Amino acid sequence: MESFPKTEVNTVRRMSDRGVYDRNVVHAILDASPMCHVGFSIDGRPFVIPMAHWRVGHILYLHGANKGRLIEACTSQDICVTVSHFDGFVLARSAYNHSMNYRSVAVHGRPTRVDGADEKLDCLKAFMDAHFPGRWSQLRPVKPNELAATVILALPIDVAAAKVRAGPPGDETDDPEWTTAWTGLLPSRMVWGPAQPDPAMAGGVPEPDYLDKFR
Amino acid sequence: MESFPKTEVNTVRRMSDRGVYDRNVVHAILDASPMCHVGFSIDGRPFVIPMAHWRVGHILYLHGANKGRLIEACTSQDICVTVSHFDGFVLARSAYNHSMNYRSVAVHGRPTRVDGADEKLDCLKAFMDAHFPGRWSQLRPVKPNELAATVILALPIDVAAAKVRAGPPGDETDDPEWTTAWTGLLPSRMVWGPAQPDPAMAGGVPEPDYLDKFR
Repeated sequence: MESFPKTEVNTVRRMSDRGVYDRNVVHAILDASPMCHVGFSIDGRPFVIPMAHWRVGHILYLHGANKGRLIEACTSQDICVTVSHFDGFVLARSAYNHSMNYRSVAVHGRPTRVDGADEKLDCLKAFMDAHFPGRWSQLRPVKPNELAATVILALPIDVAAAKVRAGPPGDETDDPEWTTAWTGLLPSRMVWGPAQPDPAMAGGVPEPDYLDKFR
Repeated sequence: MESFPKTEVNTVRRMSDRGVYDRNVVHAILDASPMCHVGFSIDGRPFVIPMAHWRVGHILYLHGANKGRLIEACTSQDICVTVSHFDGFVLARSAYNHSMNYRSVAVHGRPTRVDGADEKLDCLKAFMDAHFPGRWSQLRPVKPNELAATVILALPIDVAAAKVRAGPPGDETDDPEWTTAWTGLLPSRMVWGPAQPDPAMAGGVPEPDYLDKFR
């Protein structure tokens, strides 16, 4: 299936022309950041917290700790997982037409816990392989108590939509006569800085090849 | 008041040592991004959407359109507004201790609409002054229909907390004996790209001074 069906839940309503239901677009936006915002309710009150996520095929994985109310809340109700990228300011001639360029995806559904030690290890390895290919085999093996303390939630990416704004300001047709304001885009993006070796890493471990793509 | 009181709602529970209630820290994290994630419920289902925000003193402003269910939902219930910055990957010796460095703030409360044309204009000017000092006077004045179509929500920053992780990996005490894994930080940050003049801006408008800080 190339596109997500539009339902009551995932249909983009405000600025609906910015809605995108293409699966590849949705996946690319999810993959472009390791941090999502997870929305859920406790006692009717909404909470939004940042969590680490990664994707394998059509499954979105969330990483949590095996305690507290978060995991219970996220597995007992439909949640909303949103990943957004701020791509810059849009400077128009009227204050009204100022905007942001952005890419955002919301995924709706009820996650389930990944059960079983082997399944959990496979998920952690998939996270490592996605970001740092080859790193898994260099790591100190995960201890049973560490694995027990780790919760991985799996959310099928079935009900989802992207919302994207790109391009120049949308001034009114007669606005170009207004010539005192500079108009255009102030693009923004995320960059990686130089890797910072851990001071506790007593010399001798060279920078691995998988860090090259972060330069 | 220098710190936010810890209540049932804003107390950081998971990794509680990462909770920060200092007002200046909270404000700085809010100010460091123009995009927040707003969590609310409709028919018991959580939604998380990105919105533009700015802060004036202890008031957080959100910008929306005067239609649809979003504004109704956000003014008829307590919402959660979260602003997060991904500061990088934390690479440890065990998969378990891998982490993200981040700064995040959640603000809880029920926004009210800013009423009155003058009050709305003051808010839009405050947004412009915060990011682009001097730009307001160069803009084509806001038309009455534009102002009517604009909704600004005001949320007092009264119930809030930050959560911050910074610094090197937190390996176990005996992990440094494990010497095959590179450990450290992969820092990440947001940067601005070169300003892109609008093709519709027929020559002659020089880049204003307030763009200097985005270089």
